[in-house]
Amino acid sequence: MITRDKLAALDSVDPLAGFRDRFELREGTLHFGGNSLGPPPVATAARLAEVIHEQWGKDLNRSWLIHDWVQMPARIGDKIGQLVGAAPGQVLVTDSLSINLHRLLAAAIAMRPDRRVILTDSGNFPGDVYMAQNLSRSLGGRHEVRRVEETAVEASIDESVAVVMLTDVNFRTGRRHDMAAITAKAHSAGALALWDVAHSAGAIPVALDAASADFAVGCGYKYLCGGPGAPAFLYIAHRHQAAARSPLSGWMGHASPAAFELDYQPADGLRRHLCSTPAILGLAALEVGVDLLVEAGIARVGAKSAVQCDAFAALIEQECPGTFTFVSPGDPGQRGGKVCISHPEGDAISQELLARGVVHDLRPPDVLRFSIAALCLRYVDLWDAVQHLKAIITNRAVTRGSRPEAAHA
Amino acid sequence: MITRDKLAALDSVDPLAGFRDRFELREGTLHFGGNSLGPPPVATAARLAEVIHEQWGKDLNRSWLIHDWVQMPARIGDKIGQLVGAAPGQVLVTDSLSINLHRLLAAAIAMRPDRRVILTDSGNFPGDVYMAQNLSRSLGGRHEVRRVEETAVEASIDESVAVVMLTDVNFRTGRRHDMAAITAKAHSAGALALWDVAHSAGAIPVALDAASADFAVGCGYKYLCGGPGAPAFLYIAHRHQAAARSPLSGWMGHASPAAFELDYQPADGLRRHLCSTPAILGLAALEVGVDLLVEAGIARVGAKSAVQCDAFAALIEQECPGTFTFVSPGDPGQRGGKVCISHPEGDAISQELLARGVVHDLRPPDVLRFSIAALCLRYVDLWDAVQHLKAIITNRAVTRGSRPEAAHA
Repeated sequence: MITRDKLAALDSVDPLAGFRDRFELREGTLHFGGNSLGPPPVATAARLAEVIHEQWGKDLNRSWLIHDWVQMPARIGDKIGQLVGAAPGQVLVTDSLSINLHRLLAAAIAMRPDRRVILTDSGNFPGDVYMAQNLSRSLGGRHEVRRVEETAVEASIDESVAVVMLTDVNFRTGRRHDMAAITAKAHSAGALALWDVAHSAGAIPVALDAASADFAVGCGYKYLCGGPGAPAFLYIAHRHQAAARSPLSGWMGHASPAAFELDYQPADGLRRHLCSTPAILGLAALEVGVDLLVEAGIARVGAKSAVQCDAFAALIEQECPGTFTFVSPGDPGQRGGKVCISHPEGDAISQELLARGVVHDLRPPDVLRFSIAALCLRYVDLWDAVQHLKAIITNRAVTRGSRPEAAHA
Repeated sequence: MITRDKLAALDSVDPLAGFRDRFELREGTLHFGGNSLGPPPVATAARLAEVIHEQWGKDLNRSWLIHDWVQMPARIGDKIGQLVGAAPGQVLVTDSLSINLHRLLAAAIAMRPDRRVILTDSGNFPGDVYMAQNLSRSLGGRHEVRRVEETAVEASIDESVAVVMLTDVNFRTGRRHDMAAITAKAHSAGALALWDVAHSAGAIPVALDAASADFAVGCGYKYLCGGPGAPAFLYIAHRHQAAARSPLSGWMGHASPAAFELDYQPADGLRRHLCSTPAILGLAALEVGVDLLVEAGIARVGAKSAVQCDAFAALIEQECPGTFTFVSPGDPGQRGGKVCISHPEGDAISQELLARGVVHDLRPPDVLRFSIAALCLRYVDLWDAVQHLKAIITNRAVTRGSRPEAAHA
């Protein structure tokens, strides 16, 4: 039996407890929406004011060197590397997730010129699939974006596949692929593996290097708390950096940007994947969030998230037995930092939860998605959120019992 | 004979004089660098703090609707439209200039499938040319990026040309193309015209609609004062919006983003060109700069810029006769908001000018580029900058006279 007191006891010994005060969280709000938009770190506004007044305003374009703006995409990339298991020099912060997906997918396709299949699963984030479809279309439609069931991916990898393009943690179900096994299968078939870690980076440990991932992309506005539409990142394993070329390389990705030469020559390594001037305000805001996660340590964040996911799922079943269908897996090894439940009246329940200050997402048709972002979430918050859920369910049952016609409304 | 008193008299009747105090400008700094990085508006930091505390922090992802974040790319786009002569519904703020250039160039090429030439001039900004080269490469190398002399563009447009891709105002010389004439010539040959207005938007009036431009791109961090790496914009004439498709369309560019459908269906109009979540902090900062220009009125800004360019060029010749070669044209109709001069010792002179607080740019090999951003620049600033230039020239001559060997250093 889980009680609020037992959860409070966990809070009292939580080594990460102090981080919660470093985020702007409203009184009376319970924050389970970190996989949609992470909350602002307390330090972000002051950091932006400093960049505006002391760098942009004071030194203007000389800030590119004086304040090392030019290195921010790589410097913050290396910090994110610590969160996603990438050794330095493999992560670059730039553009958006979709743009980076196009960039790396185009590079990967070009590295497998005799193959025509981009393999993904039917649970992948639709936006990723759209980017693949539109890339294929622009290349003359010779590539097929093949969708298979989530559980059938490994068995579907054959020598027609150029790239296996998957999302590490499913955005709707929280189910996690076995990145190492699928990547190994891809490699054994001569294919490349491109992973979208938007729903895992900063929530749980990711091991891109250990899994021998070839390419990866991720976003900055979910668990990294970089702000709405924060700059995104890309990962290219060292072994592919000399070969990887995409159409999205421009001025800042030239071997000598300041020479203004007439023909494009790719810069060495990751930097060739830059185009325009990096978005410094966005990068500065993102760095604040990333720094908090690096300071906390992703192993500790992931461990707390796993314990909280287990406790939250158990509490839902304890307080609202048999009411919800669990969409997210019970096994922590297959689950990525979120608890997802469905209910035929999911939409209405979601509205009531929001009105009670339990921030979360509804994903069509009826999935309530609770993100477990360990830096912002107390153990007692799990209790309080489930009590709201229980009250909503109870009230709906009472209303329905006393006014039966309402059931048809 | 121009005197400081005469220039001070111009300041005293300048209807735009009050705008200077709405930018963060350091004491002792003269700001001629607006075409590299415009200075911060005074209101920007507070605006970002408001977005962080009152929107992002308070309403989290519900801000997309509550605070209308979802409309920011189009709303700010329409405001920029007022600066570049575009009726509402044709300008969208998103991504970077290079990404947008790729996007529109890909769309334009696809609209002229039987043609293989992208025509540009040898003075175009190299980053734009790199994007065209890399796009062509990714499409199999069937397209030629043809560079001709700046004065030979019009005569070089023939029926092999798919797209004429030019920068309105040359980044190094300040020379302006005749947008209407070149676009008309392109159309008469069945080609499309894509204009980069990075060096004109916000500095001088641009007339995209009146010139019948097909496509355009521009950046937010120069005259628009949106901050380093601010979001950029794209323009697509209404008549092309149904046909224009590019590979860079994703989740936010889907007909129904929140439905999470499995296949891409383009949104109507401009919005289809979005991919990922818009960069709200960057958009909010950009809007502050754009609002100042809209409030001032681009016609008035352009008129002051033209008068200041004339006065600045005349002053340089008056105070340093015969010393510099004028790279920018004398005719205001051929010139775009900057005065560019060259000198064999341009690099050294530039360093000394910077040390004296005259913010400007050096462009290889020896061009000193002075941006005339009318909202930030007093008429007396022209005098003071030229006095610095004169002092540097005089000191160098004296030094050289007393130590002749230094001339060979």
